[in-house]
Amino acid sequence: MMLPRSIKHCRNCGTAVIYRVPDDGDTKERAVCPGCDTIHYENPLNVVGTVPWFGDKVLLCKRNIEPRWGKWTLPAGFMELGEGTAQGAARETHEEAGAQIEMEALFTVLSVPRVGQVHLFYRARLLSDVFEPGFETIEARLFSQAEIPWEEIAFRTVKETLQRFFEDRARGSFGVHAYDIV
Amino acid sequence: MMLPRSIKHCRNCGTAVIYRVPDDGDTKERAVCPGCDTIHYENPLNVVGTVPWFGDKVLLCKRNIEPRWGKWTLPAGFMELGEGTAQGAARETHEEAGAQIEMEALFTVLSVPRVGQVHLFYRARLLSDVFEPGFETIEARLFSQAEIPWEEIAFRTVKETLQRFFEDRARGSFGVHAYDIV
Repeated sequence: MMLPRSIKHCRNCGTAVIYRVPDDGDTKERAVCPGCDTIHYENPLNVVGTVPWFGDKVLLCKRNIEPRWGKWTLPAGFMELGEGTAQGAARETHEEAGAQIEMEALFTVLSVPRVGQVHLFYRARLLSDVFEPGFETIEARLFSQAEIPWEEIAFRTVKETLQRFFEDRARGSFGVHAYDIV
Repeated sequence: MMLPRSIKHCRNCGTAVIYRVPDDGDTKERAVCPGCDTIHYENPLNVVGTVPWFGDKVLLCKRNIEPRWGKWTLPAGFMELGEGTAQGAARETHEEAGAQIEMEALFTVLSVPRVGQVHLFYRARLLSDVFEPGFETIEARLFSQAEIPWEEIAFRTVKETLQRFFEDRARGSFGVHAYDIV
């Protein structure tokens, strides 16, 4: 796999970096600053969100931002410093859908090595079917399993999470699903 | 919470950044480049590892690196770009302990907001009790529950993961444990 080389300058001193294997026993090339010796690591990002459910329906949000403008997604976004995974998932659900929820258990942990991300979704019980979408969302509405616009789902991890959710619900028992999306 | 402001210069052009709320609807201060308008995000990092078990014992590694030199840990390290969580956990187990394992299910997902990390541990069945520790490890050895050096465990997430492991094993059923370490 070709890894991104998005770092051109040192975050500490601004000098142009060079990519090489550091001298500390590391085995991978990193952006190393020839000026101040800072080693810059690039690591996967977490995306955290929820499967908000109300009766037999699930809440989806129509995206008002790129990528995938106009496609449907579960409320989710990049985890921020200073928060835990569940807290971030609740924050995103509030920001994107204005939904009132009671957080439940972790449901999916889906790695997407191709884009350097891990997507973590929690189940969340909706306390109301009234939503106040934020600026990132065109529309927030409930879908039964038969109504899900499968061909209009924004991301593969969202589609997989919805599939696992309806499968587990039909079985009457929710697990935790952790696997890679390749 | 005070978040780190470790970015002083733009990774794209080297200009000194300023911390401010971007103009794109964001609500948090980010390092923004006044030269090329690049917005720099700082996000939590994933640490991935395993609970390698052999009969009624668990494999621990004595750290040969800082922080916590000389303390005992489960094999774990920062997840890299281009790999999934399980793959990273297996890699770290190989690098730090030289252990032969069969990966099992995800076991703990522990957020540590104070340091901006999420620690994910998988259970892993040891195929052999012969280890070949890498340079980051002074010694790799098996411990029964009674032998675990609880006061000499390097990290809180490792201690919690070991506690959950022995609790679940006593109960005869392993779950997935996701919570915050505050």
